Amino acid sequence: MNGDTLSIRRVGIDTWRESVAFLHRECPVVRAAGFQALSKVKVQANGQVLFAVLNVVDDAAIVGPLELGLSEDAFTRLGVAPGHAARIDQAEPPSSIAALHRKIAGERLGREDLRAVVQDIAAARYSKIELAAFVVATNQFELDRDEVLHLTEAMIGVGRRLDWRAELGGGPVVDKHCIGGIPGNRTSMLVVPIVAAHGMRCPKTSSRAITSPAGTADTMEVLAEVELPLQRLQEIVRATHGCLAWGGTADLSPADDILISVERPLAIDSPGQMVASILSKKIAAGSTHLVLDIPVGPTAKVRSMPAAQRLKRLFEVVASRLGLQLDAVITDGREPIGRGIGPVLEARDVMQVLQNHPDAPQDLRQKSLRLAGRVIEFDPDVRGGEGYRIARDILDSGRALASMNAIIDAQGRRAVPPPPGDKLFDVLAPSDGVVVGIDNLRLARIARLSGAPQVPGAGVDLRVKLGQAVKAGDPLYRLHARFEADFSFACRMAQQDSGYRLGSADQVPREFATETF
Amino acid sequence: MNGDTLSIRRVGIDTWRESVAFLHRECPVVRAAGFQALSKVKVQANGQVLFAVLNVVDDAAIVGPLELGLSEDAFTRLGVAPGHAARIDQAEPPSSIAALHRKIAGERLGREDLRAVVQDIAAARYSKIELAAFVVATNQFELDRDEVLHLTEAMIGVGRRLDWRAELGGGPVVDKHCIGGIPGNRTSMLVVPIVAAHGMRCPKTSSRAITSPAGTADTMEVLAEVELPLQRLQEIVRATHGCLAWGGTADLSPADDILISVERPLAIDSPGQMVASILSKKIAAGSTHLVLDIPVGPTAKVRSMPAAQRLKRLFEVVASRLGLQLDAVITDGREPIGRGIGPVLEARDVMQVLQNHPDAPQDLRQKSLRLAGRVIEFDPDVRGGEGYRIARDILDSGRALASMNAIIDAQGRRAVPPPPGDKLFDVLAPSDGVVVGIDNLRLARIARLSGAPQVPGAGVDLRVKLGQAVKAGDPLYRLHARFEADFSFACRMAQQDSGYRLGSADQVPREFATETF
Repeated sequence: MNGDTLSIRRVGIDTWRESVAFLHRECPVVRAAGFQALSKVKVQANGQVLFAVLNVVDDAAIVGPLELGLSEDAFTRLGVAPGHAARIDQAEPPSSIAALHRKIAGERLGREDLRAVVQDIAAARYSKIELAAFVVATNQFELDRDEVLHLTEAMIGVGRRLDWRAELGGGPVVDKHCIGGIPGNRTSMLVVPIVAAHGMRCPKTSSRAITSPAGTADTMEVLAEVELPLQRLQEIVRATHGCLAWGGTADLSPADDILISVERPLAIDSPGQMVASILSKKIAAGSTHLVLDIPVGPTAKVRSMPAAQRLKRLFEVVASRLGLQLDAVITDGREPIGRGIGPVLEARDVMQVLQNHPDAPQDLRQKSLRLAGRVIEFDPDVRGGEGYRIARDILDSGRALASMNAIIDAQGRRAVPPPPGDKLFDVLAPSDGVVVGIDNLRLARIARLSGAPQVPGAGVDLRVKLGQAVKAGDPLYRLHARFEADFSFACRMAQQDSGYRLGSADQVPREFATETF
Repeated sequence: MNGDTLSIRRVGIDTWRESVAFLHRECPVVRAAGFQALSKVKVQANGQVLFAVLNVVDDAAIVGPLELGLSEDAFTRLGVAPGHAARIDQAEPPSSIAALHRKIAGERLGREDLRAVVQDIAAARYSKIELAAFVVATNQFELDRDEVLHLTEAMIGVGRRLDWRAELGGGPVVDKHCIGGIPGNRTSMLVVPIVAAHGMRCPKTSSRAITSPAGTADTMEVLAEVELPLQRLQEIVRATHGCLAWGGTADLSPADDILISVERPLAIDSPGQMVASILSKKIAAGSTHLVLDIPVGPTAKVRSMPAAQRLKRLFEVVASRLGLQLDAVITDGREPIGRGIGPVLEARDVMQVLQNHPDAPQDLRQKSLRLAGRVIEFDPDVRGGEGYRIARDILDSGRALASMNAIIDAQGRRAVPPPPGDKLFDVLAPSDGVVVGIDNLRLARIARLSGAPQVPGAGVDLRVKLGQAVKAGDPLYRLHARFEADFSFACRMAQQDSGYRLGSADQVPREFATETF
């Protein structure tokens, strides 16, 4: 719309996955074109093109009238040096916005529609408002199986894709993933060394915590380096059969990475979006075989067996059409797994299980053995039903510990692991009773407020679990924090509502998952 | 969460109805609390409280590590001077977010739910993402009549409410409103002087254009001052019975004003939101009787008679439960009304009708007379069916013109009205034929690109309307612009697609609205 040339300026504001252009209110382009705050604009410089949302600025110290300010995200994405000439035009709406509107109106979208939407999302052409509209619309008019398949394919299509078989030779590349929502559920750190010890390749990449008090990458980081270049990872997997690294998902599924930036604040995680998000990242990461953990419980992400089974079938259908071998397992999600919640405390639980320590949490041990057994049964030489026994033998014999130590050493052992937080507060039972409820969400929240995962030693250490009897004044759990501000806030939240419910033995909720492993 | 005290700094960025807090990445509060970009934070200073979305800044020239930067919106809302101490805490989510999630999940919301949502929206506690989620969710799971009523009541409840009767004595306070979408539809500027000349009180407040090339306030501003304090308006209405002023909707319906900031970029205008938005503003503005114009046509907001009738009934039900006398009229929305599109050109049309000028556009005259007649029939002394004749007598006798001149003088006549844009381009018929379609959206878009409403003289002047025959090379319409950049862009868009369709006489779409006035 205008030939006017502006000078690029980097504006040090982190707009979190949204490209923002800052123009001064007196900028001639703004005045002539009648750009308004939140208009979409097209930035062109040095042959590069960027779509951004406009913020109007009244302070020449941020951008002058002849400058084009770019947020950190926008600046990085455009990749042109400060001071370079740029022009700015009114942006046509992204071509897929018509498809977005059809979805908002309740229509089914086809393969090409979803490809166009995902390409525009990955290219950062959607504003936060449009992203939120897509997330809510696909949450409400549930995506059908074909739509989920096409969304998943489209997400794979815009990202980078790893192929371990080229590097490591043929045969399965196994993985294990949980849909999330259960604090302390660090089974990956046991499954990987067990199946690696069995000789399967398991190049596990994990995320850091988004809304939880610890992701697998945060917990592993207590023990070893996790930010490793791809080539190092390949060497480590060749040497040890496994790794436990941070995934850096932005490369593998850039559209998902952007969608998460609005799903997280909205706390929306619809089945279709969950399936597309998880399967796109697993396939992009080069997995051929996946065991999927779907916990079900009153405060888990999935809250009834029918819902869990619908989700399982959706995962199975889409995985099968994408050629991924999937074994989806519905598990007990009534309460946190293990004792610790927070990176350091969870790493302690994991190491106790590997060391066959008498204090090792048995629920974490049992669940990990069962999941590892299911992975081992992907081995064509293992008979159905034999996996669990093989996994248990590997763990009991110390071979899993040896495998874990090899992986830790290969990734780079941390000389001095961070200590547990030394500000301690015991949350006590207000009365005699049996533990009849532990709210996963509340415990996760309290652990986060105590500082986890940014403060690795912060979190919650559970003393009693479902079905156990306590006397008034017995500790339910212990808070660990490092900073006074976190500590007092977390204590206050725990005192308002500890997340524990006490009652009588007959009130303990039964395990939903009846499936045997 | 933290007692840490920061110093307030005004950051001159216009975030358009969203309160944004800028904190430096090295700010101790950010580090200790693990705030992330887009976290919601609670700002407290000098007894005031503000909720804001956090942006993390890496440039100390924007905010230093011990400063709390506030966007223009946030700064104005908080109302505390720069340099004042402030503390910042993690914000609890707004209490109504649970209701938002229930709406996203498809549930009905009750009166208290909607009141809580609207209060949180009006208090700027919702992020743009949450606003978009609310707008999409209420668009998809259509609000039922009770929900629309409760949403409307809640919107009225959070705003300021005018009561003209206290100022002007008893009797009806009449108003006329159109749901929008039809370019050139400036009937208010004729209805107000006609009904004022009849002796009814019509304190009309209008909006400026949001997505259209001209709002009534923009067009009236060509002739007179429109930004008038309330007390002046009351004096003007006492003296002339009418006014045509800018409404400054933010005061009357602050929640609506904020919702529009996401409805506009999403182009969502669902029936429930439309009814709540319009009726809340009319009731807040003190109207007791309202004639509502619902145009229907292939490129109007409402595209079928069944949809128009559903919308009409929804307006009627909600208005009746709120004690507003409503007469909703379904009108012909197949094409723009009058000739001009853009403030100066529309003002010319209006004045030609008032002056009984031989060139006056007859469609604008007829529609205005019919709507004015319906308003006049709110007068208990007027018999049903007599309104149109009374309105026509007032217009033909010159009393409407005299009434308009009195209003213009009272508001403050503009000595030198802005001229029509002098960069001219005639869009020509590509072939012989009859005009069988004029796309309201396309014409509005082209008029906007030519500079309207920011450039009052810019816009489009239609030469032929539906059903008229043209020869190849005859002008369809003339573009007016002031600035070269606007001009060339608008010409290009008009050449790509003029918005006119030519065909044969039998292809002219029939008028949908069969209702007689």
